[in-house]
Amino acid sequence: MKVLVINAGSSSLKYQLLDMTTETVLAKGLAERIGIEGSVVKHEPIGKNKVQFKRPLDTHKDALDIIFKALVDENHGVIKSLDEIDAVGHRTVHGGEAFASSVLISDEVIEKMEENSVLAPLHNPANLIGIRACQEMLPNVPMVAVFDTAFHQTMPPKAFIYPLPYELYEKYGIRKYGFHGTSHRFVTLQAAKLMGKPLSELKLISCHLGNGASIAAVCHGESIDTSMGLTPLAGLAMGTRCGDIDPEILIFLRQRGYTTEEVDNMMNKESGVLGISGVSSDFRDIEQAAGEGNKRAQLALDVFQYRVKTTIGSYAAAMNGVDGIIFTAGLGENSDTARASICDGLQFLGIELDPEKNKVRGEETIISTDDSKTKVMIIPTNEELMIARDTVELVEAAK
Amino acid sequence: MKVLVINAGSSSLKYQLLDMTTETVLAKGLAERIGIEGSVVKHEPIGKNKVQFKRPLDTHKDALDIIFKALVDENHGVIKSLDEIDAVGHRTVHGGEAFASSVLISDEVIEKMEENSVLAPLHNPANLIGIRACQEMLPNVPMVAVFDTAFHQTMPPKAFIYPLPYELYEKYGIRKYGFHGTSHRFVTLQAAKLMGKPLSELKLISCHLGNGASIAAVCHGESIDTSMGLTPLAGLAMGTRCGDIDPEILIFLRQRGYTTEEVDNMMNKESGVLGISGVSSDFRDIEQAAGEGNKRAQLALDVFQYRVKTTIGSYAAAMNGVDGIIFTAGLGENSDTARASICDGLQFLGIELDPEKNKVRGEETIISTDDSKTKVMIIPTNEELMIARDTVELVEAAK
Repeated sequence: MKVLVINAGSSSLKYQLLDMTTETVLAKGLAERIGIEGSVVKHEPIGKNKVQFKRPLDTHKDALDIIFKALVDENHGVIKSLDEIDAVGHRTVHGGEAFASSVLISDEVIEKMEENSVLAPLHNPANLIGIRACQEMLPNVPMVAVFDTAFHQTMPPKAFIYPLPYELYEKYGIRKYGFHGTSHRFVTLQAAKLMGKPLSELKLISCHLGNGASIAAVCHGESIDTSMGLTPLAGLAMGTRCGDIDPEILIFLRQRGYTTEEVDNMMNKESGVLGISGVSSDFRDIEQAAGEGNKRAQLALDVFQYRVKTTIGSYAAAMNGVDGIIFTAGLGENSDTARASICDGLQFLGIELDPEKNKVRGEETIISTDDSKTKVMIIPTNEELMIARDTVELVEAAK
Repeated sequence: MKVLVINAGSSSLKYQLLDMTTETVLAKGLAERIGIEGSVVKHEPIGKNKVQFKRPLDTHKDALDIIFKALVDENHGVIKSLDEIDAVGHRTVHGGEAFASSVLISDEVIEKMEENSVLAPLHNPANLIGIRACQEMLPNVPMVAVFDTAFHQTMPPKAFIYPLPYELYEKYGIRKYGFHGTSHRFVTLQAAKLMGKPLSELKLISCHLGNGASIAAVCHGESIDTSMGLTPLAGLAMGTRCGDIDPEILIFLRQRGYTTEEVDNMMNKESGVLGISGVSSDFRDIEQAAGEGNKRAQLALDVFQYRVKTTIGSYAAAMNGVDGIIFTAGLGENSDTARASICDGLQFLGIELDPEKNKVRGEETIISTDDSKTKVMIIPTNEELMIARDTVELVEAAK
């Protein structure tokens, strides 16, 4: 079965075509600046030359049109006809409480996604545009929605209810949802295989550390807590997002003349390690600056790592211990210094990092010592593969 | 040396007169509704009958006038003359970065406190009113300010810097300060005595659980992290305060028409266990309602206890382990069920609560089993005594 995976943002569209018989990628690519001047489609057929198509893209449908042509093109293509696409899997952000797992897309599903748009006004409408454009162009192909929030729907109320007037939950659905669920699910499944134990017997803490960052406590295969909240702003310090702060700070700033929009923009785009360091939102730039003696850059790394470390401790408490710590996503997979700093001082959890094994980038491997009671792992995430697997499973089941 | 301890709020004034030769309380009391109709002074001379004075109190000076008369009164008094008051210790809330310890009050100290009022607009001005009223009435008596924030000034930057634009720290002093410092300091000193070990060798987690609630990580006698923040709103769920929430929730509510003042009021006065349960902000009422089957009351307790438990885990991670957990303040000292729920599931930290020893209220004692690697203790807090001790120390040193 060949599955096209689509991740539609407001002005972008990422895609990957996978042959699920072998779980291999046939082609992948990205349409950028849709509806903006300078739009481009970057197409990468595996085993062939990359190619770029610079032309105006008014809509996501325009982008898909070019992508579909590229997929079947004589030179850049990887399939002979669009009929070879058996199913499409869509990355979708906010499933609210309506979706606790991936789902075959129907009119009813789309309706519920529209209802949840209020919880993710930047993401869900863009996801829906991508779905509708695909449906128009591949009208007879089954499609699946894989929600970023779904994996965390197993959280107990004590973890997802905020200490706010309960009416806010009933009226607006204000609660913790959590994100990066597809990634946390993928890496915990892989971790169990790597550890050679059933997931149902493991207490795992999954650290998805990229420009957006979240941690999940996965107990016996179920997410029981995670650091993001109603929105992806909460929890850890991130590239540009502040994570958890004293909420009174917002009132303090409002009283000093900042508008709500300014505060919102500041918390989402000017905070995190960018805000502390003043250097960059990219951890590679900050690590370099810190290495050159920039104290605020070092402080940004310290704050980031300290929050990861203390969150690991809090999730160990939520599960009464931990069997494995997973590092994934850009920083988690690639920064040995970040992993070493985070694990240093967690010996009380039975964690002993092996400095030699830790000298590795983006490779699925155990980096703790053989004696380490708690295993520490790098597991490169692969959300597209997880989406494609869910898609295959649901489409097969519906046959 | 006899020391008067004063805790002045905006419309209240608590006092305690202590004989510090024996560290015993001679009299204590409370003036309520200062500047409001129905004001009253409740005076409790130890070993004599309690007495109430119901009369108009326009100012804190009016209240002090009645208190001083009561202290030397033939029937309700405990001293013969005000000359017996050798020093006054003032509980003061926000010392900002200016005060890392208690301090003899001078004009310069008052000036700095006024500067810090911007960080604690409800508390510092009230503290200052109390100080000035005392100074007018006891002009030659030395006075000491004991700040709620001072103990936490040992926190490292990675714990106190928020992932916000660094300029907010430089311009407005927006950082984590923490509160309840006098209580956390007192109970950790007592805990070391109870454990029979030097404080300088202990990793302690102090849980001050009352209507206001905070936890501190005290490593070798120094606070290295605490759950309250710029203000006492942050951290745990409390009686009516929300603690940490996704900060985007404030933006979400503003976009739905709530004013900044409404959100502020809601977070401080209508949230916490009151907000979740809808029953009360008093844990005794909520425990009763939960016992009678009220599910939201049970949920409020669950959320509260879960946050305490996970914060304990995060501070164990901050210190690479923990030797002792301290429960103090109203709920911490008195609710065996709360303590049991919080400790259940922390066996991975070497915690084994003794159910029999735990059946105790307000008594300084160890409640973990003899074999428990990590000790669990109840230590009744005594902020007034701590303030009086600091006062004696500073006044003696200045002689």
